[in-house]
Amino acid sequence: MTDRPKTPLLDRVARPADLKQFSDPELIKLSDELRAETISAVSETGGHLGAGLGVVELTVALHAVFDTPRDKLIWDVSHQCYPHKILTERRDRIRTLRMKDGLSGFTKRSESPYDPFGAAHSSTSISAALGFAVARDLGGVVPEGLGDAIAVIGDGSMSAGMAYEAMNNAGHLKKRMIVILNDNEMSIAPPVGAMSSYLSRLYAEEPFQNFKAAAKGAVSLLPGPFREGAKRAKDILKGMAVGGTLFEQLGFSYLGPIDGHDLNQLLPVLRTVKARATGPTLIHVITKKGKGYGPAEAARDKGHATAKFNVLTGEQKKAPSNAPSYTRVFADSLIAEAAKDDKICAVTAAMPDGTGLNLFAERYPSRCFDVGIAEQHGVTFSAALAAGGMKPFCTMYSTFLQRGYDQVVHDVAIQRLPVRFAIDRAGLVGADGATHAGAFDVAFLANLPGMVVMAAADEAELVHMVATAAAHEDGPIAFRFPRGEGNGVDMPERGVPLEIGKGRIIAEGKRVALLSFGTRLAEVEKAAEALRAKGITPTIADARFAKPLDRDMILTLAADHEALITIEEGAVGGFGSHVAQLLSDEGVFDEGLKYRSMVLPDTFIDQASPADMYAVAGMNAEQIEAKVLDVLGVASIAAQRA
Amino acid sequence: MTDRPKTPLLDRVARPADLKQFSDPELIKLSDELRAETISAVSETGGHLGAGLGVVELTVALHAVFDTPRDKLIWDVSHQCYPHKILTERRDRIRTLRMKDGLSGFTKRSESPYDPFGAAHSSTSISAALGFAVARDLGGVVPEGLGDAIAVIGDGSMSAGMAYEAMNNAGHLKKRMIVILNDNEMSIAPPVGAMSSYLSRLYAEEPFQNFKAAAKGAVSLLPGPFREGAKRAKDILKGMAVGGTLFEQLGFSYLGPIDGHDLNQLLPVLRTVKARATGPTLIHVITKKGKGYGPAEAARDKGHATAKFNVLTGEQKKAPSNAPSYTRVFADSLIAEAAKDDKICAVTAAMPDGTGLNLFAERYPSRCFDVGIAEQHGVTFSAALAAGGMKPFCTMYSTFLQRGYDQVVHDVAIQRLPVRFAIDRAGLVGADGATHAGAFDVAFLANLPGMVVMAAADEAELVHMVATAAAHEDGPIAFRFPRGEGNGVDMPERGVPLEIGKGRIIAEGKRVALLSFGTRLAEVEKAAEALRAKGITPTIADARFAKPLDRDMILTLAADHEALITIEEGAVGGFGSHVAQLLSDEGVFDEGLKYRSMVLPDTFIDQASPADMYAVAGMNAEQIEAKVLDVLGVASIAAQRA
Repeated sequence: MTDRPKTPLLDRVARPADLKQFSDPELIKLSDELRAETISAVSETGGHLGAGLGVVELTVALHAVFDTPRDKLIWDVSHQCYPHKILTERRDRIRTLRMKDGLSGFTKRSESPYDPFGAAHSSTSISAALGFAVARDLGGVVPEGLGDAIAVIGDGSMSAGMAYEAMNNAGHLKKRMIVILNDNEMSIAPPVGAMSSYLSRLYAEEPFQNFKAAAKGAVSLLPGPFREGAKRAKDILKGMAVGGTLFEQLGFSYLGPIDGHDLNQLLPVLRTVKARATGPTLIHVITKKGKGYGPAEAARDKGHATAKFNVLTGEQKKAPSNAPSYTRVFADSLIAEAAKDDKICAVTAAMPDGTGLNLFAERYPSRCFDVGIAEQHGVTFSAALAAGGMKPFCTMYSTFLQRGYDQVVHDVAIQRLPVRFAIDRAGLVGADGATHAGAFDVAFLANLPGMVVMAAADEAELVHMVATAAAHEDGPIAFRFPRGEGNGVDMPERGVPLEIGKGRIIAEGKRVALLSFGTRLAEVEKAAEALRAKGITPTIADARFAKPLDRDMILTLAADHEALITIEEGAVGGFGSHVAQLLSDEGVFDEGLKYRSMVLPDTFIDQASPADMYAVAGMNAEQIEAKVLDVLGVASIAAQRA
Repeated sequence: MTDRPKTPLLDRVARPADLKQFSDPELIKLSDELRAETISAVSETGGHLGAGLGVVELTVALHAVFDTPRDKLIWDVSHQCYPHKILTERRDRIRTLRMKDGLSGFTKRSESPYDPFGAAHSSTSISAALGFAVARDLGGVVPEGLGDAIAVIGDGSMSAGMAYEAMNNAGHLKKRMIVILNDNEMSIAPPVGAMSSYLSRLYAEEPFQNFKAAAKGAVSLLPGPFREGAKRAKDILKGMAVGGTLFEQLGFSYLGPIDGHDLNQLLPVLRTVKARATGPTLIHVITKKGKGYGPAEAARDKGHATAKFNVLTGEQKKAPSNAPSYTRVFADSLIAEAAKDDKICAVTAAMPDGTGLNLFAERYPSRCFDVGIAEQHGVTFSAALAAGGMKPFCTMYSTFLQRGYDQVVHDVAIQRLPVRFAIDRAGLVGADGATHAGAFDVAFLANLPGMVVMAAADEAELVHMVATAAAHEDGPIAFRFPRGEGNGVDMPERGVPLEIGKGRIIAEGKRVALLSFGTRLAEVEKAAEALRAKGITPTIADARFAKPLDRDMILTLAADHEALITIEEGAVGGFGSHVAQLLSDEGVFDEGLKYRSMVLPDTFIDQASPADMYAVAGMNAEQIEAKVLDVLGVASIAAQRA
């Protein structure tokens, strides 16, 4: 471990109000200390580094000017919240970031009153700020009081329709609220879309080298006398503002762009806005993701997410991997299919690296579409690609597909269009915690008429499921797979399409059948091994399909065993519920069957390692074993001990 | 019935290509005939009149200039598609609109190759057009060919983030595609939001009285020589275009505004665009909803939706109602609760009339928020209102709540914020068909940790559920109720909060327990009456809650009966699945229980009367009765007959 940085000013900050004691020059020094402390903390924990480094000065300025937690400061996505956490009574725990029982890597209401509205998905902050502003004006009562509402949102997050919906509504309601557009030309990946180009043009037309002009962008909010002095600034801004910026057209006062790393610009502008703003106000701030830490600035992703690292060298301490990641297997398989079929194309919503589509895009750039943070559009765009004779793979994390759910129903399923949904990060995901869990997709997809829903039991299965999806023409098909590495199984040379709606028997046994859907199969096999040592030989089956179910296989399993237990990495309403529906429809329960469905529990599970999270969920091998023993009425070791 | 209109020109149109035989003046006449035919047809069927009347000339112009179905013409929402259907080989069935086995009230891929992308929910058309444009350029193959892609979208639909996401992506990809912004300052309700004000300003700055100037808005697309002649037009447009319109800022060529009822403007502009457009092009067309039919023009909703009517007088033939609608009961109940509690407020996404919030807004204008067609924002805005100490009722149709699903998960449920979801149009909805069915909400809500999910069995229950939601402070709560009238039950004087998670026994019986969730209870009671005549006396229970379940009641029902049958107006994965999970977890199936779960079938059900749709779904009284007889092993009448 490197030495902790010296932070004499920061050490005097127990809470944000303590920032008011400092002069502006001291706040500049304090920002340097806060940056060093952030780097030091993340070097020990890993996590989202670049975003926080980009807003160190902005964080200091906001807390120095406004009065949190009475004023509601809402960080969009909140990857950038680590410096904020350090300033808001959580410095003592900042080295537990993203760990079990530690601080969340995101803002979180249950963690601190300084986090008035948690986030992790993108583009919610303007809606949230507007809600607080309206609640304030309607006389809402909360313990901390209701003052100003401030959303800090990145330019990447501005590609989401939700941000536009909120601005459209805010411009209409005309409530005092503040949006800080943190323009770093970078979200997780470089932002795409016309809005991004537009912001670049705005900046190109009025770079902020001339500090005075920029700071005085606040001119329209200023009292009369000062306005006179700011006439030149006004003239400069006018060139950009004739016809209005896009933000002004939507009813916002627009200020900027200003240098987000210069407190001599940030502080006066924020003070002016605080003193004078009457309606919705947007401050356009230019920052650099990864600012002030060489290795982050130099990285392609600007230090977006990092493992633990050496502060001096920037070298990351990554554990060696034993097997390829599911994401990589998916990407390679899709590339292999695309080599055989020029109709295959792919759509991602601003997650090219996370989904592996960056690899696909390198090989087939004209067939890969990053639509921005725009899942609604991404799904319907995919539907139309399918209607136009292409074979689109709509590739999203399970949790983000929730953003496009209506489009899955209305544009894909009802029209029975062959969109292939590649659903990454299915199940529990580890350090990102509850907001990123892929818990609900099987439930919300498998009850859609005409939808095929698969889950890969291991990385070899994933290869075949990509091939199955590529070959499937009769309506939509989805396949899910988890975050992380595969099991190291032998990989097939090429994907072979599976028969739709057919599962497979992994091992023949007696008394109890374990019917797995997805990657819990490995835990099931471990449990079975332990059970065999106790004289119980379970049958093991891999359902492969939650829809259509393998009716014959499942009914045979039910008929041939005393007990049938399903296991899946999802909430109730999914695979197990469909199996229960089949069994009840067929009258299997009439004469008795020890049926159990192991699903994710009815809680949002906080961050930890995936294995720890599955332990909380009761879905690891020991717990599967215990469930079998319990169902069969065999005293378990745990029970014997109790 | 009034006489059918005389339509000599229209009679010569068997398909859109036939329009090419007509001169422009003839097309004007033909438009009049098409308007008359549309009015005549809807007078016989009822349906969406105003939107279609507003686009008669646009429909003629598009089909006269472009080559459908090779060119893909996509009507947003598609309420306005009736004239299009008349021109596209469906005139012979136009008087079956919205009826069982008749034409859909919306565009529908399975109905016609002229409907390349069906719609019913808003704001999908730009995504769809972009998908077709990209598929075309990638070499996609479809039977009709792939030509131009044209989206026709109303100004109201432009408040949805999805439209913005699509424009953002289109402006980035720079493919040739055409968006026609049909600006009638009216969606179902007057549109709200800053975008709407912006469009009004655009129009105010450049009204289209000067036809030549307007038509020559196409100047930038024209060849050199013509440009000279159009210099004045260019100058006029320039005033508006300096800095660019919002659409230009997003990468579109902007033309307009032009008069959408003047074929002398529409035809040349469309021809120019067809001949010259290279990238994304937006044509801003001003129309009047209800145009050309006095009673529609005079109506507050511009004839948005109408019953059958007398063409001469405009008088609608509405069936007398026996009971108040659920929507009205909800609105009255909410107003009553709001009178007692000034923290209660309400949010609608552009459906003030459909949800009854227009009545709430009349009484409490400052506490009612129409956010536009913006369910994503609406849900998160509601979440922040709750975080700010208010008691928001987020009021949406079941099918539209799908648009805000991620926000329900991420912003409401994970943060355990007490948003009250009032879910109208739950279950099957009749003439609007599959796209508007509220089939999935119980499944997608009841597996969210901390969510309370209720369904009203009748209109009196709804009153109590509104009170229950108002009183509930510990996390989110949802209650669902159907389209249409209540049962005419006695109404309580005031709502009394229900105990969370407690159902009620309606009738004690033997052998079989019928456990209803929602308004199928009336059919269950009818079925029970018929069964009693056969010597079977079922127990009847109303679950009230899908979450939390009334465990004691359900386990007692299971213990005391040979058979337990659940009934709900929703797809598998919902109430019945949660009951099955409880029963299996508790080992109830181990010793045998005749358990059945009656849910909506695994098909999208086409429009018909709700009773007919439930017959298709197998959920009417006779079918419930038959299920009981079957489960109990009693030969049913149907079976005896067979």
